[in-house]
Amino acid sequence: MITIVGERLNSTRRAVAGALAERKADFVRNEAVRQAQAGAHFLDVNAAAAVSREIEDLKWMIGVVQEAVDTPLCIDSPDPKAIAAGVEAARGEVMVNSITAEPERAAAILPIVRDRGARVVGLTMGGAGMPETAQQRRDLAATIVDMAARYDVAADRVYIDALVRPVSTEPAQGRAFLEALRLIREAVPGAHLVCGLSNISFGLPNRALLNRTFLAMAMATGLDAAILDPLDARIMASARAGCALLEMDEYCRAYLAAHREGRLGE
Amino acid sequence: MITIVGERLNSTRRAVAGALAERKADFVRNEAVRQAQAGAHFLDVNAAAAVSREIEDLKWMIGVVQEAVDTPLCIDSPDPKAIAAGVEAARGEVMVNSITAEPERAAAILPIVRDRGARVVGLTMGGAGMPETAQQRRDLAATIVDMAARYDVAADRVYIDALVRPVSTEPAQGRAFLEALRLIREAVPGAHLVCGLSNISFGLPNRALLNRTFLAMAMATGLDAAILDPLDARIMASARAGCALLEMDEYCRAYLAAHREGRLGE
Repeated sequence: MITIVGERLNSTRRAVAGALAERKADFVRNEAVRQAQAGAHFLDVNAAAAVSREIEDLKWMIGVVQEAVDTPLCIDSPDPKAIAAGVEAARGEVMVNSITAEPERAAAILPIVRDRGARVVGLTMGGAGMPETAQQRRDLAATIVDMAARYDVAADRVYIDALVRPVSTEPAQGRAFLEALRLIREAVPGAHLVCGLSNISFGLPNRALLNRTFLAMAMATGLDAAILDPLDARIMASARAGCALLEMDEYCRAYLAAHREGRLGE
Repeated sequence: MITIVGERLNSTRRAVAGALAERKADFVRNEAVRQAQAGAHFLDVNAAAAVSREIEDLKWMIGVVQEAVDTPLCIDSPDPKAIAAGVEAARGEVMVNSITAEPERAAAILPIVRDRGARVVGLTMGGAGMPETAQQRRDLAATIVDMAARYDVAADRVYIDALVRPVSTEPAQGRAFLEALRLIREAVPGAHLVCGLSNISFGLPNRALLNRTFLAMAMATGLDAAILDPLDARIMASARAGCALLEMDEYCRAYLAAHREGRLGE
C-alpha cells in the first residue's frame, strides 16, 4: 500500500482551529480515531493557525491524539521551533513536514530529523518560488536529497513533494507534475514521492473526482505516498485499487480484504 | 477527449448474439443510441459468434445501427472477408479491429484500410503469442506501424493496442503495460494508443473500480483512446476528469459541460 498521511488535523480547517482554541479534546480524538480506522499510516498535526499559541496548541493536540491512537504523527509547521517541540512530544515513528531546497530551513530542521531518526517531507521549492517545469522539480529534489545526506538523513527517509498546481489556471501543470515524478524516480531512486492532491482541482467542480483520478495517474508515474483525507472512501478505494494494479499489494491481499470489509464501494 | 469506442455491440455478449440470431432490431438500436448518447465516438460491431452467418449478421447489425445513429463504426472481426463486407456496408468514418504484427493478416486487411481511408487497431502480438514485456510490445508496435506505412496507411490512422493482461494471475503486467505505452509513444510518436480495459481486473472483485483506476493510470502514460462500456457512468467520468487533468480538454470545457449535465456523478 502507498503511505497515507491523514490531513484532517490541520488548523487551516476552521473546525480544527476552533477545537484547538477551546481545547475540545473529543473533536480531536474523534478525527484521529476515524482517520486511523480508515487506514491512515501517519496523521498530520498542524496547529499553526494561532501563531502566538502554536507550540502550546501543538503539544496539547499531540497529547490528545496519542491518548487515542498509536498511529505515527507527521509534525507540520512553518516554525522549526514548533517542529522541535512536536517531535519531542511525539512518541514512536515520526514524520516532519517540511523542508524545502532552502539551506537555512534545512539547517534548522534536518538536525532534528537526524537525531530522532525521523522521516521528512521535502517540497521542491527554493528561494525562486514555485517550480514550473518537471526538470526544475527534479533538480530541486536532487538538491534536497543531497542536503539531507549531508545531515546523515538517508534518501529513503525523504518524501519529495513535487508540488501539485491547479490545472484550472495552468493546464500544463498536471502533465508537468506527472513527468516530474518520473524524472525524480530516475534521478533519486531511493527517495519516496508524496503529494497533497487537492490543489490539482482548485477552481473546478467535482473536485473529489479529479483528486482521485489524479492520484491514480500519479501512482502510475511513481507516487508512493499521499497526504489526503482518508475519510473520503472513494479516494481510499482508488489508492487500494492502484496498489493492486501496480504490484504494491502482494497477491492483492489488502485489496481483497478491503473488498470483504465493504471499503471499496460499488 | 480521448477517443471512446463503445464495446457493447459485441456478439461475445449473449444478449447481442441472441439479438443477431432473432433479428431483434430494437435491442440493437437501443444499445447503439444509448452508447452514442453516453459519448461514444465509435461503436464497435462484432457478429463473429455464429461463424457461418457472420457476414450476413454483421451487415444486418450495421444497417440497424446506422438507421439509429450517425456515430462512426469500428468493424470488429477475426475474418478479413467480414471486415471487407463490414467496411463496405458502413458509411462515413470507419475503424477496423484489428491487425497484428503478423504479415499475412496485415496483407489481407491493410489494403481495405488504405482504400477506405479507415483507421485500424493494431494488437501488439505476433506469431510468438502474447507479449510479456514493455520492450516486446514496443517492438511489435513499431513493426505494425512500419507495415501500415508500406500499405500507405499513416501512423496517425493506427491505434496500437498493447494488450492488457490480468494482474490477478500476473501481477507485474499492470506496470509492464503502462511502461509499454510510454515506450511506444517514444518509438512511434505519431500513432494512437488504445486498449480494452476489462482484462486487467479479470478474477478480482469490484472490477469496475479497477478498470477505471487503470484507465486513469494508462492515460497518464500515453493512452488516448479506449474500448469500453460507455454506459458505465463512472468510467466515463474518469475519462473526462483525466482529460481535464492532462490538457486534453481546452479550458476544461467538456468537463464543465459534463458537470452541468450531471454526468460526473458525486
